[in-house]
Amino acid sequence: MRLESYGAPLRLEEIERPETGRGVLVRVEAAGVCHTDIHIVSGSYDLGDGNLLRMAERGIQLPITPGHEMAGRLADLGGFTEASLREGDPVVVYPWLGCGTCRKCTAGYENLCEGKPASLGIFRDGGYAEYVWVPHPRYLVPRGNLEVARSAPLACSGLTSFSALKKCALNGDDLLVIVGAGGLGTIAVQLAKRTTGAKVLVLDVSPSKLELASELGADQTIDTSGRARRDVISEIKQANGGRGADAVLDFVGNPSTSTMGFEMLTKQGRLVLVGLFGGAASFPLPLFPLRGAQILGSFTGTLTELSELVGVAATGAVTTFVSAEYPLEDANDVLRRLERGEVMGRAVLRP
Amino acid sequence: MRLESYGAPLRLEEIERPETGRGVLVRVEAAGVCHTDIHIVSGSYDLGDGNLLRMAERGIQLPITPGHEMAGRLADLGGFTEASLREGDPVVVYPWLGCGTCRKCTAGYENLCEGKPASLGIFRDGGYAEYVWVPHPRYLVPRGNLEVARSAPLACSGLTSFSALKKCALNGDDLLVIVGAGGLGTIAVQLAKRTTGAKVLVLDVSPSKLELASELGADQTIDTSGRARRDVISEIKQANGGRGADAVLDFVGNPSTSTMGFEMLTKQGRLVLVGLFGGAASFPLPLFPLRGAQILGSFTGTLTELSELVGVAATGAVTTFVSAEYPLEDANDVLRRLERGEVMGRAVLRP
Amino acid sequence: MRLESYGAPLRLEEIERPETGRGVLVRVEAAGVCHTDIHIVSGSYDLGDGNLLRMAERGIQLPITPGHEMAGRLADLGGFTEASLREGDPVVVYPWLGCGTCRKCTAGYENLCEGKPASLGIFRDGGYAEYVWVPHPRYLVPRGNLEVARSAPLACSGLTSFSALKKCALNGDDLLVIVGAGGLGTIAVQLAKRTTGAKVLVLDVSPSKLELASELGADQTIDTSGRARRDVISEIKQANGGRGADAVLDFVGNPSTSTMGFEMLTKQGRLVLVGLFGGAASFPLPLFPLRGAQILGSFTGTLTELSELVGVAATGAVTTFVSAEYPLEDANDVLRRLERGEVMGRAVLRP
Amino acid sequence: MRLESYGAPLRLEEIERPETGRGVLVRVEAAGVCHTDIHIVSGSYDLGDGNLLRMAERGIQLPITPGHEMAGRLADLGGFTEASLREGDPVVVYPWLGCGTCRKCTAGYENLCEGKPASLGIFRDGGYAEYVWVPHPRYLVPRGNLEVARSAPLACSGLTSFSALKKCALNGDDLLVIVGAGGLGTIAVQLAKRTTGAKVLVLDVSPSKLELASELGADQTIDTSGRARRDVISEIKQANGGRGADAVLDFVGNPSTSTMGFEMLTKQGRLVLVGLFGGAASFPLPLFPLRGAQILGSFTGTLTELSELVGVAATGAVTTFVSAEYPLEDANDVLRRLERGEVMGRAVLRP
Repeated sequence: MRLESYGAPLRLEEIERPETGRGVLVRVEAAGVCHTDIHIVSGSYDLGDGNLLRMAERGIQLPITPGHEMAGRLADLGGFTEASLREGDPVVVYPWLGCGTCRKCTAGYENLCEGKPASLGIFRDGGYAEYVWVPHPRYLVPRGNLEVARSAPLACSGLTSFSALKKCALNGDDLLVIVGAGGLGTIAVQLAKRTTGAKVLVLDVSPSKLELASELGADQTIDTSGRARRDVISEIKQANGGRGADAVLDFVGNPSTSTMGFEMLTKQGRLVLVGLFGGAASFPLPLFPLRGAQILGSFTGTLTELSELVGVAATGAVTTFVSAEYPLEDANDVLRRLERGEVMGRAVLRP
Repeated sequence: MRLESYGAPLRLEEIERPETGRGVLVRVEAAGVCHTDIHIVSGSYDLGDGNLLRMAERGIQLPITPGHEMAGRLADLGGFTEASLREGDPVVVYPWLGCGTCRKCTAGYENLCEGKPASLGIFRDGGYAEYVWVPHPRYLVPRGNLEVARSAPLACSGLTSFSALKKCALNGDDLLVIVGAGGLGTIAVQLAKRTTGAKVLVLDVSPSKLELASELGADQTIDTSGRARRDVISEIKQANGGRGADAVLDFVGNPSTSTMGFEMLTKQGRLVLVGLFGGAASFPLPLFPLRGAQILGSFTGTLTELSELVGVAATGAVTTFVSAEYPLEDANDVLRRLERGEVMGRAVLRP
Repeated sequence: MRLESYGAPLRLEEIERPETGRGVLVRVEAAGVCHTDIHIVSGSYDLGDGNLLRMAERGIQLPITPGHEMAGRLADLGGFTEASLREGDPVVVYPWLGCGTCRKCTAGYENLCEGKPASLGIFRDGGYAEYVWVPHPRYLVPRGNLEVARSAPLACSGLTSFSALKKCALNGDDLLVIVGAGGLGTIAVQLAKRTTGAKVLVLDVSPSKLELASELGADQTIDTSGRARRDVISEIKQANGGRGADAVLDFVGNPSTSTMGFEMLTKQGRLVLVGLFGGAASFPLPLFPLRGAQILGSFTGTLTELSELVGVAATGAVTTFVSAEYPLEDANDVLRRLERGEVMGRAVLRP
Repeated sequence: MRLESYGAPLRLEEIERPETGRGVLVRVEAAGVCHTDIHIVSGSYDLGDGNLLRMAERGIQLPITPGHEMAGRLADLGGFTEASLREGDPVVVYPWLGCGTCRKCTAGYENLCEGKPASLGIFRDGGYAEYVWVPHPRYLVPRGNLEVARSAPLACSGLTSFSALKKCALNGDDLLVIVGAGGLGTIAVQLAKRTTGAKVLVLDVSPSKLELASELGADQTIDTSGRARRDVISEIKQANGGRGADAVLDFVGNPSTSTMGFEMLTKQGRLVLVGLFGGAASFPLPLFPLRGAQILGSFTGTLTELSELVGVAATGAVTTFVSAEYPLEDANDVLRRLERGEVMGRAVLRP
């Protein structure tokens, strides 16, 4: 399924399985459908005040095969005969490739490449396809017995939650507020409850999503629909002995959620912005120093973090919530439903 | 010199030297005059959009003796006979006291107390006086042979620079941009050049302040007066091989400097906000995640950091730039000149 | 129950409830019995090669009331009227007090005081009594609804496990090996499984203790009794895909366990020594650099860590395993049984 | 200059300049001679108690061209046309390559590879030659205007000092003791004085080496030749207000230096072992927990750290002390003199 022009639907095409020599080949068995794919297809992010961040300016060239959440099996090792992997091995693909030589890449932060990024499904062909080329076997994380459809979302929504949660730097008795109980939020709830000692409080406007968050371990939930920001914050403080939140994980990232998130922070509080909804928000400057407050952006995660996360998932501590599986050619449909907020958990394509 | 009502000048009063029983007594020999004192006397901080943070709301009660940058000699140990200090010992006073029992205080962050803060010179009587009561000898940092007038500013402007610089988390080959070459900026230049391997670039609108920054070790300076933000940022990137700043230390903290600081960050860049100039600023939300950008507020520092800083200063690695010394009764004059930006380095009162 | 001379049994004495003025008074409702109490009563630690670390040299003066694991209720606030606590409030006492003025104390590490330490139950009268004086309300951690007998051991065995586990700096897919499934080990198993993503493997010579470890969540256990070091290590590596342990928590700390712990480390592995069994061990020096190996000592924990741990325990994530409760006057009996290794989990005195 | 059998001298051989296809080709202009080269030629490390760590067991296969400290110019980019480097660019080569796919490699710690390491000059042909193949351009660190002979030692002795110094985690007022003022020690002195606020005290048995350390900025030096360990430790404590060392950097690493280093630590002190002299040492186990003491091994450093170090060196903050330059064919001579301790600073071959 390829994108040929921004704003147009994806088109199904037959492409020949390429010859060896460009890395290792993976047979895609599951490809998660992500909000970022919506931005790729539409062609831009909103930066607020009428400014757009256009995909073309980020260096994305069409046509492209989207899909960066990929799980499958190693199909061809190419020349990498020394790797410990064998053909047929079940793997998750790390898609956030960088140029490989800039400061961020050599420090292990390919996801924040300062050179020419080469992320699969964004700058290079990805997983809305039967096969995908991966430049080096190091980017294949063995997934052991993890089920393939539930593994694919680890590469983006899982990884993004995991890396963002690390930035929260939670202490055992901290209060973490998670804003948004969608695909990422539900993973964050599980990870926070199984790998930290923090209390977890979840905000959303959907009662059914909040119910799911509770089932997954959230200590408290608040339905924010139709409620004043001030009331929500005051309810949170009441729930935490008068203190605000020690950390807020904002998976929405619009002006309203980020402003509310900042306001509910206690001293030394961290607002971790993950969501790419868009827009600009205004923050009162003296409160940063006076409260020792922090705003931290978090974007996907590193290869090391994915490897760690797959390890955590293998112990059963976290399960990506896969709502449904679709054939590859339904990609446009699924994207549309995701955009309308109709997808709970994660939708996965099965090429 | 006491503040009796907000907006009014300080009044000189004779107060009896209090009896023992309230801690240890320090003979004040030097008291630095700080921008915060201006806010205390005026009564508020500007939060932007017409909002004010009033001192009275922060719990400050009048009359109060300002002055939180204090150096002098231990005059009376009170009942703390087991302390290793002796009467007559030269000390710097740590003024950023908290309630002592909240989570931040017990974790060593009294400067970010979540209970009832008790900072000297703000919530309790401080150093615009001949003597000051300090509740416990732990707050007295021995200053060895450090000259008294140059020691006093370590307690606030020195400490604030030091703690903010730590939050920059500089690697050896990072570029640090310092915004504002006043009292704090000049200390930060020295600390950055003597205790990290980073390159240091300083921005200011005053050629004479920039010249001082160069003398103190800055690798490069840019006079930003009358220049477009875009030009300044592009000059910085050019100076850094096309990359932006790895960290920005903003000692001004107004909407214009903080917006510029955020824009010049490279991937994983840290904007550390220190200055309390005031106002609100708008930031494009998607850039936080997409760049892995951070905004970190930094407020004064911890007792441990002051102890560390006095150690660093004792090796001669950093010198607070004391422009002039004045008798105690000139306090109102000095505050006025500081407000008009006429003070280079630090002015110190000598009671 | 007071210790009057080293090596002699404790003697029950009536002491008058002291007047106010020395801090806050806590009514002791439960006091845990700890291995350290055995060393205090016997008078020394073995340093190997015939050397002893004598309690008298550490500055302990007799007579003393042992007991540093204390939970109870606030009985008298003394002069600290501003504290947020009320008389009758249920608390856990932080016992690891230092001099309050040395570098370690001011940095929040009173447990590693470089001056004159003042730990309750060791240098000052502790909890084998009906009441205990605590110098400042900051050392009282509110325990909410936590049951009193299960709360007391948090102050030492819980805290020691918690702080040592933090030093393991575990990643999500690390292998943690816990040596010793006694009072501390069983807490560490729970904390590791509930607050990190690591796999946990437990070693002990007692099948019943290993069974308990499994029930509490250990992923694997190995009975090391009568087995060669080499075999145990090879079994561990086999269980971890050929890699050694990423971290080893040694709660025994004798020459044999520490040597084995060091040998089983993979690259960048951390051996955290907690146990005070005693002796000296020889390590091959080039393996430290060639493997990037680390040995880290961990001693009790900080006040902040206790506060964190009580927060974690309040969510039910960890339960101290209290084997039995005894009246105060049985202290000598309980100590004897602990020394013979007959106590599973923790024994608690109820004054 | 190739090693054909352990214990034998190196032999000069003409090898054809290999064809492209194996990475990028660097023209070697300077190759430092390192203690490790002595171990490679002799064939083993001493592990104490009669045990040897043999090179053959580490997977080193003969014949091999030693030399892992390489600086020169990029001669052939191979197929890596997208790299930002150009042929002729001056570079330092990062030699500590790993397998590229193990956990340590993907986390950026190729120097601690758990798979099949591929370090240049050890497992693959290195810099005692006119040209060297490097598998990927990411391992070439641009050295700007840094002089070539002084750049080469940055790749091992510089990097090792730099990485070890980071592990010391020095605070501004810490005391750092450096054991050994040879090639690594002199770099560490400079790095410690220019990039941290710590006091630096150097121990050695050679007055001339100590004099050099003083010139490079050491605050104090002690000649330990013929002195009792106890005296040296007591002199250090006296120099530090009664406290021991906060960190010890041991560049010798024999049983005597490491024992002394451990004994001089204050609470929370770090002994960083770097030297590969060999042997085993015995440590009293209870002192690890009671003092919160740490022993940390440090082995070379990461690519990121080399990049950082080259940045620091480019500002002139550190100069590798190159004692003399020799033609390539003198390699055997230089190795012999290094083994006898006759080389001050670093000897460099100029192919």
